[in-house]
Amino acid sequence: MTKALQINRLVIIGTGLIGGSLARALKAQNAVQEVIGVGRNIKNLQEAVNLDVIDRFALQPGEAVAGADVVVVATPVGAMEIVFEAIAHAVESTAVITDVGSVKAVVVAAARRHLGAHFSSFVPGHPIAGTEQSGVAASQVDLFEDRHVVLTPLTETNTDATTRVRRMWEVAGSKVIEMPTGQHDQVLGATSHLPHVLAYTLVDFLAGREDSELLFKLAAGGFYDFTRIASSDPVMWRDICVANREIIASTVRAYGDALEAVCKNLEQGDGQGLMDMFKKAKHARDLHLKTSLR
Amino acid sequence: MTKALQINRLVIIGTGLIGGSLARALKAQNAVQEVIGVGRNIKNLQEAVNLDVIDRFALQPGEAVAGADVVVVATPVGAMEIVFEAIAHAVESTAVITDVGSVKAVVVAAARRHLGAHFSSFVPGHPIAGTEQSGVAASQVDLFEDRHVVLTPLTETNTDATTRVRRMWEVAGSKVIEMPTGQHDQVLGATSHLPHVLAYTLVDFLAGREDSELLFKLAAGGFYDFTRIASSDPVMWRDICVANREIIASTVRAYGDALEAVCKNLEQGDGQGLMDMFKKAKHARDLHLKTSLR
Repeated sequence: MTKALQINRLVIIGTGLIGGSLARALKAQNAVQEVIGVGRNIKNLQEAVNLDVIDRFALQPGEAVAGADVVVVATPVGAMEIVFEAIAHAVESTAVITDVGSVKAVVVAAARRHLGAHFSSFVPGHPIAGTEQSGVAASQVDLFEDRHVVLTPLTETNTDATTRVRRMWEVAGSKVIEMPTGQHDQVLGATSHLPHVLAYTLVDFLAGREDSELLFKLAAGGFYDFTRIASSDPVMWRDICVANREIIASTVRAYGDALEAVCKNLEQGDGQGLMDMFKKAKHARDLHLKTSLR
Repeated sequence: MTKALQINRLVIIGTGLIGGSLARALKAQNAVQEVIGVGRNIKNLQEAVNLDVIDRFALQPGEAVAGADVVVVATPVGAMEIVFEAIAHAVESTAVITDVGSVKAVVVAAARRHLGAHFSSFVPGHPIAGTEQSGVAASQVDLFEDRHVVLTPLTETNTDATTRVRRMWEVAGSKVIEMPTGQHDQVLGATSHLPHVLAYTLVDFLAGREDSELLFKLAAGGFYDFTRIASSDPVMWRDICVANREIIASTVRAYGDALEAVCKNLEQGDGQGLMDMFKKAKHARDLHLKTSLR
């Protein structure tokens, strides 16, 4: 189904959970000759070498990308502009550049500002996969298996570059879909960014109560599942929230309006109204569980 | 550590996930001679017999409780008043009565209204365990292992009755703690009822959007964990929400205020403020994960 893919030199800038998992998956499929990891934390990079996730590492993105045919930017979203600036004058004209950021509009804008002639070789991407953990030690060879990867190529984007990035993710086991950057940011703002904001806010809200010790002591399994995403990396989520702040803020407000309506049902003791909503929600979730990939 | 417990005839009114799991646990410990299940759904009761969760069943609580030394009311909270009324004139004077309701104040009030002289033998209880599933087929012998059970005995409650219910839960593997009904309802309102309201509201909110099909298609693992509790039984949760509506409504509103503050941070692009909150939340959750029973 998937055509052959051969990458000679893959440079992964930001060798954490996502970058590391991609390297593992491509290596497992013999789709890459050499992987160079770039990062700021030498201990993490050395660990990535020891785990055979990368073959060698560099500290400067600008030096690392020389000779690379595929460059994957896998840093937190807030660091991507500096990366684009650093690689713009060093990346090969034949190289394909992509990223894994959870927000696309600001990343595209940053790439447009700095990549110059290479901008047409830049394919914005976002693998919808991950865990609340971070760092290369948490990387998994099958993290992307059966998961969606969204690509948001622009009118300027070279079709061959998009095809190459699509194949890379297909080799890693993913299903690739394309959509406009704005739609991506709206969709992810609702399904990922909003839940993270809700979960972080809930844990912080409970931690600030006087009875917080008892609250956490008596929290049950449902609470741990519900708040798992609140153990995600705060830097990564600060960057996502700042980058997609307008969409997230308006989505949170719309959710707040829905919550206000539920409050009214509660205050009026409207059991029927509450149950109707609970049923609709359960139905939507159960239905989707059956048809989703997971 | 736990003193011996022997129940001759245990009557479980409401033979679902919780009642069924309790019967399984007590049977596994040889702590009960005979278990009678009471319910309205003959198919479910027959399944409970087939699964050896109960020994026989009855449809009328008032008939079933004759000769029982322990009666456990495990129906949804909204059905408990009728049950108390039905058993008040049939239950033995030596019997101990308890319940498993997720709300305690309204259950205590209903028991006080109907149990008459038996009220002093009633020990309000709540095992903090469960899954998003329901029904006896989902019952598990180890559901209560290492979980907390809250008892909220009143000044009128017979100490021996409390001790007997405590031992029953300890035999089932639980850690029992006591607190006033009001405190229970505040704590559970925050750690359980609030998250359920948030999860149901989120799924319903997303299901109501025009792009809902794409939203659910692109939802990742974190979303499924976050919304797992929205697959819980709507009748059970209607009853809980109506029964604890004042506390839940005020807790939801306080959470809404916290969310509003986060919205302001988002709108102002205050990355530092967001990250500080995310860090506090992650710290609280990670710290508690280490010290909790799970």
